Amino acid sequence: MKREDKAGGEGGLEALMQGIGNAARAAQRELSLADSAQRNGALMAMAGALRGRTQAIIAANAGDIEDARRNGRPAAFIDRLMLDGKRIEAMAAGLEAIADLPDPVGRTLAEWTRPNGLRIARVCVPLGVVGMIFESRPNVAADAGGLCLKSGNAAILRCGSESLRSVAAIHAGLTEGLSNARLPEAAISLVPVPDRDAVGLMLAGLGGTIDVIIPRGGKGLVARVQAEARVPVFAHLEGICHVYIDKAADLEMARRIVVNAKMRRTGVCGAAECLLIDRAAPHLVKPLLEALIAAGCEVRGDAALQQADARVRPASEADFGHEFLDAVIAAKLVDGVTGAIGHIARFGSDHTDAIVTEDRATAEWFLARVDSAIVLWNASTQFADGAEFGMGAEIGIATGRFHARGPVGLEQLSTFKYVVHGSGQTRAP
Amino acid sequence: MKREDKAGGEGGLEALMQGIGNAARAAQRELSLADSAQRNGALMAMAGALRGRTQAIIAANAGDIEDARRNGRPAAFIDRLMLDGKRIEAMAAGLEAIADLPDPVGRTLAEWTRPNGLRIARVCVPLGVVGMIFESRPNVAADAGGLCLKSGNAAILRCGSESLRSVAAIHAGLTEGLSNARLPEAAISLVPVPDRDAVGLMLAGLGGTIDVIIPRGGKGLVARVQAEARVPVFAHLEGICHVYIDKAADLEMARRIVVNAKMRRTGVCGAAECLLIDRAAPHLVKPLLEALIAAGCEVRGDAALQQADARVRPASEADFGHEFLDAVIAAKLVDGVTGAIGHIARFGSDHTDAIVTEDRATAEWFLARVDSAIVLWNASTQFADGAEFGMGAEIGIATGRFHARGPVGLEQLSTFKYVVHGSGQTRAP
Repeated sequence: MKREDKAGGEGGLEALMQGIGNAARAAQRELSLADSAQRNGALMAMAGALRGRTQAIIAANAGDIEDARRNGRPAAFIDRLMLDGKRIEAMAAGLEAIADLPDPVGRTLAEWTRPNGLRIARVCVPLGVVGMIFESRPNVAADAGGLCLKSGNAAILRCGSESLRSVAAIHAGLTEGLSNARLPEAAISLVPVPDRDAVGLMLAGLGGTIDVIIPRGGKGLVARVQAEARVPVFAHLEGICHVYIDKAADLEMARRIVVNAKMRRTGVCGAAECLLIDRAAPHLVKPLLEALIAAGCEVRGDAALQQADARVRPASEADFGHEFLDAVIAAKLVDGVTGAIGHIARFGSDHTDAIVTEDRATAEWFLARVDSAIVLWNASTQFADGAEFGMGAEIGIATGRFHARGPVGLEQLSTFKYVVHGSGQTRAP
Repeated sequence: MKREDKAGGEGGLEALMQGIGNAARAAQRELSLADSAQRNGALMAMAGALRGRTQAIIAANAGDIEDARRNGRPAAFIDRLMLDGKRIEAMAAGLEAIADLPDPVGRTLAEWTRPNGLRIARVCVPLGVVGMIFESRPNVAADAGGLCLKSGNAAILRCGSESLRSVAAIHAGLTEGLSNARLPEAAISLVPVPDRDAVGLMLAGLGGTIDVIIPRGGKGLVARVQAEARVPVFAHLEGICHVYIDKAADLEMARRIVVNAKMRRTGVCGAAECLLIDRAAPHLVKPLLEALIAAGCEVRGDAALQQADARVRPASEADFGHEFLDAVIAAKLVDGVTGAIGHIARFGSDHTDAIVTEDRATAEWFLARVDSAIVLWNASTQFADGAEFGMGAEIGIATGRFHARGPVGLEQLSTFKYVVHGSGQTRAP
């Protein structure tokens, strides 16, 4: 039985979505042939259009904010949703910064000549059509749309229903920019209806028109995407990042790194959620706990840690492998680097883990055996970020093992093909 | 309701398969830390063990062959299944050749230093556990097992029920080699039962223990794997390879390339299945048709082509986009390079397509616009092969856009992680 919905019946929604998929696919073909100057021109025009539409965007956003308030959404939600002149300027500047990045499309990644004279090149090409599913932050539309355009990919944006007015206003600026640069507007398409079933249709790939899905949002969204998607997904479900302080750590450095890894920003996926301290280094325990607590962090640990500092609260088993995204950290004594590696293998999320030590051999042991997307020696886990890696900008962080691992930037939004130049070669029987 | 099956009930099969997955995962951890010499030592020992077991392997194979004959399997099937001293020696030599290849594990793919002094390296690491699902060719066990071992991956081999005795005998040689090199035997595991449900369990990922599935076999197998797998798949469903002969082609070269692309071996995925000739080059049509027909190829084409050579048989619409894997080719006149690109976009399978022309601009236009894993200019499509690309050996060819595209060799069986060396860096607020 067909159900009615806002897009005019199930068939209506399906037809609408398939139309978006087909148009994006066609636009992508055109985009992949547009030269660098044309794509960069569109990015600059998009930035200009966002600036020119600042008032309209703020007005649209006000409607979303009002609804969110009426629906009793928490302050953090409303802060993520809110747009002002400063945030709109940041979006525009972000698009200009993307235009300034080197063009990945057409870059020769490797090239070699075979004994028979065949010249084989691995050439960077766009992935295709990116399905971007996000929640309340409207700026994702501009950031993701810009990165996809730069890398020759078409984007299909699907935002949370509560930010649809804001995103539609931003999207109007993006398509104005595309149109100014004579690129197809469908290169950045927006799902214009709030129907939840649209997500399911995208996860099924819209009849082969979507090549990859990138979710941005809470754990519930990412988990659903990972469970249901029939196309590849670039995502991380959570960032359970560990900092292991080895007995050979420099105390000053350990203190600085632990406090930064946890407290610089507690809501980012690269924030540390668990502190592991070498059992053989009792002299490090008290000062590290003190530093965290002094910085406003709640520390949860076992009896030994509570004995070291009475302000440590008892940890439950559930505190390990938990993403607090808050000023809370689980802490534990472990049996040296081997104990740390075992703990991370059991409780980590393959995201980012760090060791602090002055002992090179211990560090190399850790770096080789912790199988996370990012492993660091004597540096804060908060460096888990495309811009910090020098990629210019990122569309997300992936913890899968395929294609994109770690920050997803322009290079990870690209694939390659083999281009072979011959002079009449045939293959021997 | 539970069904009985050969593995002792559904629970029995599930438990068996999960046990294989868990053991492979544990073995992979050990493997990823084994050094190059140990993995190469195992490959050499495996080669020796296969040679030492030649008689036992031939005896086991005789049982499979006898059953296949009794079941009325066609001659081509029995040829694929058959093992003799020469084929066993080829497997052993193949393992030695893999040992000689450079080690991908631990290779630094890229390295750069950030302004804050962080040194970021992208380091090659194994993918993990590879599920290899294949049909009647028993040699796939040695080839795939060897490539996985070399690249630090564990392999779970699942062969067709009709080759199980042969593969089990080969597998015994592989595990003997692993054991001699003191590597875990589960690094190359064999599904020891013929139950078809084992495939479904592997496609579901065996509780997260399988990282990638590689199918090798007929279109039915690959289609099932692509439709049902819940983990990434490296595969090509079919190779609908095109050769486009441009009006600016050199006739001699065109003739040589077309005949080789079609007729060198008709059963490989890189064999041409469709000949496209520029409508503006009537002088090329007759000699190319004659050359193909003289080489024993059936040509199917429209009225214009039948007029050029009366031996051309009428083509139906279904002949285009069809993988003949035989001495048959579909042929068509197209409106220049644009017509060829359009035809390939509609009927191709993203595998391998070639242009023959002396005109560089036309060639570049074709190479940029045909979005297949491999595009060639003035060379035969039969070069679509890992060894011909200089990769040493391949485990298959992939037409997906992610991670592995084209020949799947050691590099494509690897992923990477970011290893960051710091000196106490913390991230600015």
